[in-house]
Amino acid sequence: MSDGIKHGDWLTYRPDIKVLDCTVRDGGLINNHHFDDDFVRTVYNANVAAGVDYMEVGYKGDKALYSPSKNGPWKHCDEDSLRRIVGDNDTDLKLAVMADAERTNYKRDIPKKSESVIDLIRVACYIHQIPLALDMVKDAADKGYEVMLQLMALSTVNDRDLDMALKEATESDAGGVYIVDSFGSLYSEQIRAYTQRFLAAVKAAGKEVGIHAHNNQQLAYANTIEAIICGASRVDATFGGIGRGAGNCPMELILGFLHNPKFKMRPILECTQKIFTPLAKTMDWGYSIPYALTGQLNMHPRSAIDFRAGANPDDYVAFYDQLMEEVS
Amino acid sequence: MSDGIKHGDWLTYRPDIKVLDCTVRDGGLINNHHFDDDFVRTVYNANVAAGVDYMEVGYKGDKALYSPSKNGPWKHCDEDSLRRIVGDNDTDLKLAVMADAERTNYKRDIPKKSESVIDLIRVACYIHQIPLALDMVKDAADKGYEVMLQLMALSTVNDRDLDMALKEATESDAGGVYIVDSFGSLYSEQIRAYTQRFLAAVKAAGKEVGIHAHNNQQLAYANTIEAIICGASRVDATFGGIGRGAGNCPMELILGFLHNPKFKMRPILECTQKIFTPLAKTMDWGYSIPYALTGQLNMHPRSAIDFRAGANPDDYVAFYDQLMEEVS
Repeated sequence: MSDGIKHGDWLTYRPDIKVLDCTVRDGGLINNHHFDDDFVRTVYNANVAAGVDYMEVGYKGDKALYSPSKNGPWKHCDEDSLRRIVGDNDTDLKLAVMADAERTNYKRDIPKKSESVIDLIRVACYIHQIPLALDMVKDAADKGYEVMLQLMALSTVNDRDLDMALKEATESDAGGVYIVDSFGSLYSEQIRAYTQRFLAAVKAAGKEVGIHAHNNQQLAYANTIEAIICGASRVDATFGGIGRGAGNCPMELILGFLHNPKFKMRPILECTQKIFTPLAKTMDWGYSIPYALTGQLNMHPRSAIDFRAGANPDDYVAFYDQLMEEVS
Repeated sequence: MSDGIKHGDWLTYRPDIKVLDCTVRDGGLINNHHFDDDFVRTVYNANVAAGVDYMEVGYKGDKALYSPSKNGPWKHCDEDSLRRIVGDNDTDLKLAVMADAERTNYKRDIPKKSESVIDLIRVACYIHQIPLALDMVKDAADKGYEVMLQLMALSTVNDRDLDMALKEATESDAGGVYIVDSFGSLYSEQIRAYTQRFLAAVKAAGKEVGIHAHNNQQLAYANTIEAIICGASRVDATFGGIGRGAGNCPMELILGFLHNPKFKMRPILECTQKIFTPLAKTMDWGYSIPYALTGQLNMHPRSAIDFRAGANPDDYVAFYDQLMEEVS
């Protein structure tokens, strides 16, 4: 590829690629962010030891929408909650939070960078929320943060809208834009086409392209490396592949692929076997057929999540029949 | 691509692609082929109902090497064992068996096609066994079978040897050659390069390219569709992704991708939930970190299989430390 980036081959690596661990943020969608401090601290320490670039701790959710009585502390990521875990975060690991469009009182709840241990605000929106999201990007940038824009449910956005959104993002203060495969429906051919389209739009302005993949079709890791091969430089992963529904790209796979000597595998394995392998016995995430079916149909996984939480989570035929009724 | 094949896009499909179910053959490596008749019959009936092209039932293993007292009937696939399940196989599903180089008394144990319900012999070999494998190919073709050649452990073969092997295969009676990622170590870039190299060598002679992928790095399905996109037309899959170690490409994913209306999803789901989801609770296969680590190091998975069968199958750190000692 002749895009000016040094792309890696079998015996090199790309120092421009940054890994973000979204374990506590995306995993928190399974349990309304009720992870206890020990859990979050163990993940934090593992990320620091492994040389991961960013850790996304949770959301800046509006307490009027998400009451603290029903949601754990990582739904709001108040400064004192964060500091209980990280102190002043005197490490190389940067901290991130997600700010959802229409679910965040961003002007009030996001303090100035000088008053926060947070480094990166990731603004997440659907295509129709782009105008609001751009104001959130500006607000966060003005306050002194690094900012990224996550365009969710990309697989439902038509090309004309996408090109307009990318143009707006290019002219914004966001440092980059993410391909977010919310439904886990995208195939490698599509990931290639999206990555090229995103880079063509934003790269000349010095912005990066990232990817957040879901594992509905066992493609989270595959699509992540496909995006990397095409020039993406920001990738998301989680311990044990934890995440809502079918989960995310597993951290041990992406670090193994990247071959950047700054990344250490052992702390990842240690944390995974200590916390996530046992947790997977009582918390439902990861590949299963209902998620594959919604992914194949380019549908939100919520019906599969509901089905998996029901009385017969492995009655795939019943779920298939239900889906066929819904789409016909 | 301008190779003369009609490649599919989002709203078409490729009728040239044939799916082979190797559930009983590759899954049998976990339990020495001790699946009972009901199990094999249920898989057979599901394949017939789903419109799968081929079912590989097992090996033609030499009884001098694999005694019937220690191995189930699908290690040998005697004609009477097969007929107990399929009768005269008066269906559209073709039957396949695998014949391993140096582990098959092929002249004696493979009858003439006119005396067998088997349709396809898949000859499997390592690179140094190519001369023997070519004799096995000729023997099977002379007896009247369709024949395919499986080049195992491809990731350890150097390019010069590979090109010679492909030249020999091109001049043989094999109908095609398979990319076999025995170690689950190949990335999509490599799959693309191999598929193109295989096609360049064999396609002009009217032969096909196939793929048999393993899931060590959660890439079995991803690599299978990558090979398809590059022009491969023979793919392997299994129910529930069953198979030795990390297992194979799951059948529900590949059928969902192919969009050929002759394939039916419901019988696959029915069989998977009836047999394979319960079986996965007592039989160990599928992705886990030890398999990921051997895949990343391009090593045979046997050390990971042994470790998973030991006292602490989820002590990833201990396994990692052991591997690091072995490779240093």
